[in-house]
Amino acid sequence: MNAIEPLCLRDFQQSMRAMYLEKDLARGVDGTFMWLMEEVGELAAALREGSLDDQMGEFADVIAWLTTIANIRGIDLSEALRRKYGSGCPGCRHLVCCCPDEGKP
Amino acid sequence: MNAIEPLCLRDFQQSMRAMYLEKDLARGVDGTFMWLMEEVGELAAALREGSLDDQMGEFADVIAWLTTIANIRGIDLSEALRRKYGSGCPGCRHLVCCCPDEGKP
Repeated sequence: MNAIEPLCLRDFQQSMRAMYLEKDLARGVDGTFMWLMEEVGELAAALREGSLDDQMGEFADVIAWLTTIANIRGIDLSEALRRKYGSGCPGCRHLVCCCPDEGKP
Repeated sequence: MNAIEPLCLRDFQQSMRAMYLEKDLARGVDGTFMWLMEEVGELAAALREGSLDDQMGEFADVIAWLTTIANIRGIDLSEALRRKYGSGCPGCRHLVCCCPDEGKP
């Protein structure tokens, strides 16, 4: 990952693959999901009472563990985001969401 | 988001900001975290018994809700990932993790 250019999600996923895939495959989806859940709990705690630095670290960890699960399944997160959100809100198809509040406030 | 170039996480976060920030701010971190948890549950279900397309959609939704929480707190996810993982594994500092298995198998 270049230190100056904006982070490309595909490059990040590739770097996670190089860093962790062997361990991820050995652990499998179920075991890796448990680690993800631990990090989600740490993110909740940081959001409640952590510093901004703590919160940044926990966001990074949650995305990292999500990425490792995607790697186990061979899913390209960049493509997944583009398919679901690349044409606007999946609910109303607008670039500024105008879904009714009663649906998802 | 350009349909051909690799997805830049900062651009994605900016598009989520344009799409949802007003609703996200009104809902706040706690309420948005509840939506994130719902999506995490749907991801778990899709990983167990969904198609690859289902799984892609749920990964996208989890990252989208994570991104909205980061937007509420003004956190740049691209910078968060770079700080935590940009120099290799945070545990052993290698680009291919060589942390001992007893720590994080």
